[in-house]
Amino acid sequence: MKLTSYIGQDGRESCGIVTGTIDNPVGIIDLGDRYTTLKALLADEGGLAYAQSQAGREPTVAFAGAKLLPVVSNPDKIFCVGVNFASHVRETGREMPPKPMIFMRFAESQVGANQDMISPKVSDQFDYEGELAVVVGKRCRYVPEDKALDYVAGYSCYNDGSVRDWQRHSQQFGPGKNFVATGAFGPWMVTRDEIPDVGALSMKTRLNGREVQTATLDDLIFDVPALIAYCSSFITLEAGDVIITGTTGGVGAFHKPPLWMKAGDTVEVEISGIGILRNSIAKEADDFAIL
Amino acid sequence: MKLTSYIGQDGRESCGIVTGTIDNPVGIIDLGDRYTTLKALLADEGGLAYAQSQAGREPTVAFAGAKLLPVVSNPDKIFCVGVNFASHVRETGREMPPKPMIFMRFAESQVGANQDMISPKVSDQFDYEGELAVVVGKRCRYVPEDKALDYVAGYSCYNDGSVRDWQRHSQQFGPGKNFVATGAFGPWMVTRDEIPDVGALSMKTRLNGREVQTATLDDLIFDVPALIAYCSSFITLEAGDVIITGTTGGVGAFHKPPLWMKAGDTVEVEISGIGILRNSIAKEADDFAIL
Repeated sequence: MKLTSYIGQDGRESCGIVTGTIDNPVGIIDLGDRYTTLKALLADEGGLAYAQSQAGREPTVAFAGAKLLPVVSNPDKIFCVGVNFASHVRETGREMPPKPMIFMRFAESQVGANQDMISPKVSDQFDYEGELAVVVGKRCRYVPEDKALDYVAGYSCYNDGSVRDWQRHSQQFGPGKNFVATGAFGPWMVTRDEIPDVGALSMKTRLNGREVQTATLDDLIFDVPALIAYCSSFITLEAGDVIITGTTGGVGAFHKPPLWMKAGDTVEVEISGIGILRNSIAKEADDFAIL
Repeated sequence: MKLTSYIGQDGRESCGIVTGTIDNPVGIIDLGDRYTTLKALLADEGGLAYAQSQAGREPTVAFAGAKLLPVVSNPDKIFCVGVNFASHVRETGREMPPKPMIFMRFAESQVGANQDMISPKVSDQFDYEGELAVVVGKRCRYVPEDKALDYVAGYSCYNDGSVRDWQRHSQQFGPGKNFVATGAFGPWMVTRDEIPDVGALSMKTRLNGREVQTATLDDLIFDVPALIAYCSSFITLEAGDVIITGTTGGVGAFHKPPLWMKAGDTVEVEISGIGILRNSIAKEADDFAIL
């Protein structure tokens, strides 16, 4: 089952089931009469079963015309993982990290599929990072690795768009990872039952059709159970929380010359068995401010 | 005016005005009939004026018996600043940072005044960090420094409790700064009109009555306007967002031997003109988990 968040016909946020295949999505079966957000659906113990019971209905909205929101529009917490692909660590000559490198994104930095990712006016170093996103399905703390997958609702694609110069203002990555509309999340979440083995997934990032990143998910240094166990050790995970599991080699910053995303570009993150997250890039206006 | 968040007599969150002085708080004038959270009050353009209009009422709750929540219980964003006191940077032999070092806390890591801060079962390195908290009063993006104070609602005390070994698992501080019930925030917010000059404030941290940190706020490398300008450059600040402005020398990790907070300890952060944030320390049970 594919679940997503979008702006309904009344202009308000809703969530629903995407019909059709991951290559040919057709419509959305709206679930907004019961759950206005996907987070609310996941937080309700019977939410996924209810969605399943509605999956045979006719779609109420054409997928092509829907304005998609980030799959979870309002997660309490987004955990990002740095340097988590073994082959990428080896190629950069670094040592294998003893613990996951975790930094944070705020929900307000996200944007949905098919929307503009925004290159901010204060930088030209706007970079892509294709990643697998894990959506938490149930409240938990101190989950052991062997039970961790029970707390996963599903998987999605994420583009952890990074403003590189701001990421390097200090040793803490936060500012460069939290610009408005830089974290693209979509186009939907595929429920866990349809992804029996995350390690079998492969991931590609394309900029204007050119393949710039490729990886297989069996190359994660800290896999999904390890990340759930680690993050749930310091804070309680809640339904709708998101863990984005890290990117691999090929980011624009390490191209020579660097390959930054510019207005008019199209960037895609494709994960086998999940789908394609596609976004256009727009440049923020020079005089933009909220005062 | 002193505003705080607490659990009302009906067991639900409320907010109100603290009566009496910062040395002798007497009661709380409940504002829960109009605003269930302080964030909602701040987000309403007329919220502070409404509170002011109610300030002459009789308190409805005794302050001493109230269960306080974090001053803002549910901020969308909490920005923490590292290495931001000039004298502390000089004493450690480091260079002055060219840009603010910003890392993030999630709201779920917070705890109110007079409540237990929790030393987690997975570490014994639980440390204090006395800090000034700035509460954002109004939505803004790309605020210039010379207008930044217009977007401040008020100031409070914060204890940015840090689990040092987890803070050093990687170069990213997040895990060690986001354990449940480690970020103490209170006991109230003093509105900006009562603090004309942040630089004139002084701050002390005491552990079991022993003074372990002392600083004056004129020693901040990046002052409140600079921090508002910087953070609002990457993400939109919203009413109720919190910036904690950094700690000074004297943290427990640098004592010889290290001075960690243990069960039964009392820790206080006192800022002149604001008040005293006092918390007890409790140790998490060895078998604690949420599964």
